[in-house]
Order: sequence, then C-alpha cells, then structure tokens
Amino acid sequence: MNDLIHALQDLLGAHQVLTGDDVRQRAVSWFDHSPNQAGAIIRPASTEEVAQALSLCHEAGISIVPMGGLTGVVDGVRATPNQIGLSLERLTGIEPIDVDSRTLTVEAGVPLQKVHEIAEEHGLHFPVDLGARGSCTIGGMASTNAGGNEVLRYGMMREQILGLEAVLADGRVVSNLRPLMKNNTGYDLKQLFIGSEGTLGIVTRVTLKLRPLHHSLSTAWVAVDEFANLSRLLRQLERQLGGRLSAFEVMWRDHAELMAGDDSPHTLPLEDKAPYYVLIQAANYHESESATFEAALETAFEQNLITDAAVASSQAQQAKMWAIRDDIERLTKKLAPYAAFDISLPIKHMEPYVDTLKSELTAQWPAAKLIVFGHLGDGNLHIFINVGDAMDDSNRHAIESIVYSPLQHVSGSISAEHGIGLEKKAYLALSRSETEIALMWQLKQALDPMGVLNPGVIFD
Amino acid sequence: MNDLIHALQDLLGAHQVLTGDDVRQRAVSWFDHSPNQAGAIIRPASTEEVAQALSLCHEAGISIVPMGGLTGVVDGVRATPNQIGLSLERLTGIEPIDVDSRTLTVEAGVPLQKVHEIAEEHGLHFPVDLGARGSCTIGGMASTNAGGNEVLRYGMMREQILGLEAVLADGRVVSNLRPLMKNNTGYDLKQLFIGSEGTLGIVTRVTLKLRPLHHSLSTAWVAVDEFANLSRLLRQLERQLGGRLSAFEVMWRDHAELMAGDDSPHTLPLEDKAPYYVLIQAANYHESESATFEAALETAFEQNLITDAAVASSQAQQAKMWAIRDDIERLTKKLAPYAAFDISLPIKHMEPYVDTLKSELTAQWPAAKLIVFGHLGDGNLHIFINVGDAMDDSNRHAIESIVYSPLQHVSGSISAEHGIGLEKKAYLALSRSETEIALMWQLKQALDPMGVLNPGVIFD
Repeated sequence: MNDLIHALQDLLGAHQVLTGDDVRQRAVSWFDHSPNQAGAIIRPASTEEVAQALSLCHEAGISIVPMGGLTGVVDGVRATPNQIGLSLERLTGIEPIDVDSRTLTVEAGVPLQKVHEIAEEHGLHFPVDLGARGSCTIGGMASTNAGGNEVLRYGMMREQILGLEAVLADGRVVSNLRPLMKNNTGYDLKQLFIGSEGTLGIVTRVTLKLRPLHHSLSTAWVAVDEFANLSRLLRQLERQLGGRLSAFEVMWRDHAELMAGDDSPHTLPLEDKAPYYVLIQAANYHESESATFEAALETAFEQNLITDAAVASSQAQQAKMWAIRDDIERLTKKLAPYAAFDISLPIKHMEPYVDTLKSELTAQWPAAKLIVFGHLGDGNLHIFINVGDAMDDSNRHAIESIVYSPLQHVSGSISAEHGIGLEKKAYLALSRSETEIALMWQLKQALDPMGVLNPGVIFD
Repeated sequence: MNDLIHALQDLLGAHQVLTGDDVRQRAVSWFDHSPNQAGAIIRPASTEEVAQALSLCHEAGISIVPMGGLTGVVDGVRATPNQIGLSLERLTGIEPIDVDSRTLTVEAGVPLQKVHEIAEEHGLHFPVDLGARGSCTIGGMASTNAGGNEVLRYGMMREQILGLEAVLADGRVVSNLRPLMKNNTGYDLKQLFIGSEGTLGIVTRVTLKLRPLHHSLSTAWVAVDEFANLSRLLRQLERQLGGRLSAFEVMWRDHAELMAGDDSPHTLPLEDKAPYYVLIQAANYHESESATFEAALETAFEQNLITDAAVASSQAQQAKMWAIRDDIERLTKKLAPYAAFDISLPIKHMEPYVDTLKSELTAQWPAAKLIVFGHLGDGNLHIFINVGDAMDDSNRHAIESIVYSPLQHVSGSISAEHGIGLEKKAYLALSRSETEIALMWQLKQALDPMGVLNPGVIFD
C-alpha cells in the first residue's frame, strides 16, 4: 500500500493524495458521519489522471472505491484501510452547451444543480431532479442510475445519457461521447456503466440529453377516497395532459398527518381528511395549458376520482405543497429510530401489499408505525417503519424480511431507485434470478477480473 | 450437421425443422429475395424450446442465425449451409395488457402492428413505428434497437423496453420481465441484448412500456428557406408544444421533387419552391391543442422561420403528406441503381456535411444525384445516391468512403437506426474506437465464447 501511495503521489502530486487525518476528517457519506477509513483518497483532475491512477492500483492489486457527492443511501462508497478512495471532485469540466442538438457534456464531478442552471439559461431543461441536487454529482447519478420526481415523464438517469466516458479497471479509457439520439453501431457500452455502482468502470464524463423548458408549472394537491381511484386518476390525467404530467406523488394519510402534525411548519392544503393525497404537477408550454390542467381536475371531480382539490395559485404555494412531500428531515426526526425502504411493484399489487405489510408489522409490534408515500406513477413507494423498540440488527432484519419477501411474488423490486450497495446485497436474490446473478458475475469477471473496482458492492 | 438436425427434429418435431427445398423457398430477407442458404431453419414454439435447441447447437458447435420479420436492411440474418436459422415466428404469445402499469408483455415473434392495435384498444399508444410495421417483429426490433418516426419524442426501442427475456448461447434463459419503471437491482442485463443484433443472446420475450393515447394529431407541411432556420424552427416548436412534438421530418428539395415529379401519385402541398420542406406532427390530448399547434406555426411565420405552411385539415390530408415522406418504393425505383445510407450527426454539422458530400460526389460523377431526407430532430439523415453508372463493388466502396469518412470528425455515426449487420462492419471503426471494439469483443467472448450466435455480424 505504501509503495502505491508513493506512486500515486508522484503521479498526481502529494497534495492530491490524502492520507491519515486528511482522510479521517472526511465522513463516509452524508448519511454516515463517521470518519472515512480509506487507506488514502486520491483526487485526480482529468480522465487521463484517473486512467493512470487506476492502472497503478490495478498493477498493485489494491482496490478502489469511487466517491462522488456521497449522497447515496445504500452504503455504496465505504472504503477500508486497504482500499483507495477515488474522489471525482476535481473533474468539474463543462463543455459548451449544444443548443441545436439539446446536449451538454460535463465531467463526473459536476453537481446536478449546475446542470439545471446551465440548461435553464439556454431555455432548456434537465429532467432528473432530487433533493440532493446541490451535492450529488453527474458521475454518481450515472453510476447509480438516479431517479427522482420526473421519472414518470422522462425516465431515469439512463434515459438522459447519450454518451459516456469511463475508465476500466485496468486503466483503459472507453469513450463514446457522441451527442446523438440515434447511434446503432454495435454494443451500447455505456449501459454497462450506468447503474452498476462503480463496479465495472469509473464514469468520468457524460453527454446529457436536455429537453425543452416549460413556460410554467401547474401544481395541485388532491384528496382521493380509495386506492383504486389513484390509478384511475393517474391514467385519466395522462390521457388529458398527454406527456405534460410530470409528477404524481401519493401520500398515505399517516404520512401527510405526520408531516403536518404538531410543531410542523407545514399545513395540509385541504382540511377534510382523506386516506390518500396526491401531489400532481404538469408542465405548461403555452399560457392556455394551465386551463387544461384545471379542466382535467374538473373531469376527475365529476368522475368521483377525487373528493377535493387545491390548485396552487403561485410559485410560493407550489413550493409549500412540495415542502410537505420533500421534508425528509422532519420525517426522519419524527420517526427515529426507523428503517427506510425504496421499493417498486406493479400498481395493481400495491394496496394488498401495503395491507399485508401493516398487518404483519402490527402482529409483531402492536405500536408499529408504517409511513408510505412515493412516486406512484412509477410504481415506486418509499416506506418508513418505526416499531417502537430501538432499531437493532435483529428487528431490522425482521422488518426487512417482512418488506422484501412479498415483492418476489408480485414482480416487485427491492430497490427502485437507490441501488444495492452493501446494504441490500443480502436481498438481491429476491429481485434477480440465479442465472441473472451468475451472468452479472460473468460480466464483472470479464471487465474487472482482479476485482479492484468497488468490490463487495452489489454482490460478493 | 446431420446429427444435430436429427436431434433438433427429435426435440421440436420433424415439421418444425425445415431443410432442403423448404429452406430454399424462403428468401434471405425482404431485401434479398435469393433462396435462403441455411443448413436448416428451426421453428421452436416456446422459450423452453429455444433454450433446448440452442443448447444442442452449442454442444455441436454449430452456429445460429436468428430470424425475425426479416425486414432489417444491413444484411444481418444471412445464414450459410453450415448454420442453423432460428425463426421466432411461432413465439407469438401475448400476455394480458396491464392498463394500470401501462405495460404489455409479448413474445419475440409478435409483429409491431399487433402491439399498436392492442395498445389502442385500451386507450394506450406504443410509440415506435416504422414502415415495416406489419412484418417486423418485437424480438427483431429489440435486437436491433429499432428507431422510426417518433424517436424525437419517445426515444428508440431501447427506451420502450422495461423487461426482457433472452436465451444465451449455451441455452441458459436470462429473464427479467418485471413491468417496472424503476428497478435498480444490479446490472441492467437487458441492455446487453438490445441492439446487439442477436450476437449475445436470442430475445424471446419483452415487456413494453406503453404511453397515453392522443386525442388527435396535428400535421403540417412547411417550407423553410435556409438550413439554419430548420434547427431554430425545431427548437421553437419544442418550446411551444412541449413534449407533444412527435415528428420533424425534413426533406431536401431534390427529394420532395423526385417524390412528386412526373407520373407520381403525390402532389406537394405547397406550390412555391423552397430548399427544405418539413413534415411536422404533434399529438393533441385536448381539443384546444390543435389551436396551439397552429399558433406555434403562426409564431414561426412571424419570426421568418418558415416561408409557407399547409396544415392538414383531415386525416386523409395527413396521410397524403406522410405518403410523400414514406414512399420508399417510388424513391428506390426512380433512383436505381442507388446506394442508401442511414447516418446521424449533430445538427450543427449537417449543412457543411451535405455540401461536402455533394461536391465530392459531383467531382467524381458529374451526373450524381444526392437525395437527402430524414428525422432531423434526432440528427438522423437518410441518404440515397445515384452516380449514373451501374452500382458495382468498386463505385459502391468509393461512395461509402465519401459518405462515411467525414462522420468520424464530427461525432457522427455510420448507422443511426439500421445497425451494422454484415453490411457495415468494415466501417465500424469510423464510429467506435479501438478500445470500444476490444471491449465489445470481450463481451462477446464472455457471453458466447464458442461464437455460435450470429457470428460475423457487427464484427469478426
């Protein structure tokens, strides 16, 4: 390890190879503030430096843990003393935007928010958005195939990536940054690196597809009296709003009440209680389209799909509605100690799934609290569970088993948008078959036979 | 080979293993009517039969050429007497549509048109469409990542596929048919099989994402006086129509005039001549939206982006406009002997690229005809070239070199939507780097070490 560190210092400059306290001063991630345990953290400034550094690590047989914005939530960037942390923080280059092709090429360390800003300056829109926008980086979002609020309309991060450059385990650079919507010239290699959590290559640069920027947004908070009406409402709104429906966020009543309860800065937009609330958003490209939005809600009301609705009349009111949905800080504070989940399953299975979950939890812990909300339009639910007792390994595993096991039988997924990391790998077989995992392993062996890239993440 | 054929007959029944004249009666493809030369053509009826047949071929070391609708245009399904043709024509199963999740799972042999019909019956829309819709199959479209007219709005076939089942070279079945928009559980294996032209696995079943069905379409034919205004017009329409703009098909004047010239059934919708015509289409989800479409054209007129416009006032008029764009039969008849190309490049490089092409062609063949049209919104141009002389190997290669070589320097692609097949593999290195091709080959070796799946296609 010492020889490698010296070689890396020669390559990058001593200042760009952090060791000892300089490493320990850094936290593992935004969700684990304990001191980073990496043997060293290197900070290359270019793809070429990343490539040379990987080549040195590969020769030394020392493994690499890539570090982006550290906002992932599945424990995917935990380095040990015999590993090197590879921070992409100095890869912040941004190429001039191509407005004609609606594309933007940026290096891995560029934060999401910067991409939003550049796009908007040019009358364009980058449609992946999530709470960590100021910290999460494009490289990390590509490596984890990030999701967020507008997947219903635009798809995940994977769908926004036209070109990608990555460094392989042995230091070879694989690059195809052509800003093309269509390019059927052999295998689409970028797909290997998207969502593989840094285990097949280090993403260093990405060409992103941008979209037309909207003129305004229409936002409403509606009440729905039964589950079946949620999916009817969703499909009805899609039919009337076409591709403009960009969010359909459902909150089960317990969630909404927790968010707006005692000492809360939030107030629910509707007074009457309902079992489900939906935060609906559509993009308008023409003044007349906000009227279409209201007409669609009117239709839903006439068809008894919603029992009440509040339409935001200003951007401030829109922000207030979103704050109820997005205030994860309040949620986690109120609910601690909790176990949190990010699952997906076909909408038709959701109601019985949540019912079963509730009854199994309360059978075991009568005071259990189950908080459910999420991007219903994408089949994605976020679930927070408090069982009263402290959250030790034993009851955490029991809860995980209750949440994950039924998903296997309803074509569900144990990780909708967060990934597997170290945290969920014990449950991978609930979502992927033996043959699939064997094939995944074959790919890992083909691309990283020495196992130097983020080993232990996803699978062993 | 004979032993293998007997084993396949035992497995599938003699009737499902075509040999001799039964094979010869079948053409190579829709574009090569010569007798099929495969040693045998097998017709399994299920994924299980495909798997067992592949396992037999793998053991015997005999290679397989997959056969879907045979509508591909890059010579990707040519079997030799020492190869087995694997027809997916009996895999026509269709699972019940899931309207709540907007998904449909079908077997590989189902034709595209059937998927359109089922979706529309349920108020949904499958957004990949192409001329061969009655013959091309979902399996072939997945294997070749088909494109078509609505890519601008919805992306290629890849973006429509949520789940996929494939059989590997050795007969293992890799399946993940979960109908989920979000599923970040390890490597996204389906991406390997999409667009790899049957060289990494045989696609047997696909879960497709459907979209809301529109209420009506608005279609216009407009005249544009200079190239720079084409991309301005495109971005202006996108800004005003949001996600509803679904086609932006540009025809250079020579193309339009050839299509509407002497003895043609077509008439150009505008009388005045212009260097470019654009066929524009947007989907409406509400009655009021056709007015927004016309307002967007009005704005374009005021901004001098278009010099004239005809808006179709009926479905019949829409069909007439599309017929001009889609009448490939007339085009090929009028232009024979011709060489045809399907390339993509960033819009900003298109005008100088086409100018250079024209001058290089006419320098060598003064009477050369250059016909250009295509999905400009996707950066995709279709190019047809007639140089007067017969199209022999020598001048075909000279033309290919003139068309393909400049693409390398402008981040272009030698194949936008058609793929590589046998036809374009000599030029693969113009679009992909040495490292990329080496990595593609590493994948091929990892998944098909014996080289039994469509060998020679894409690369050797």
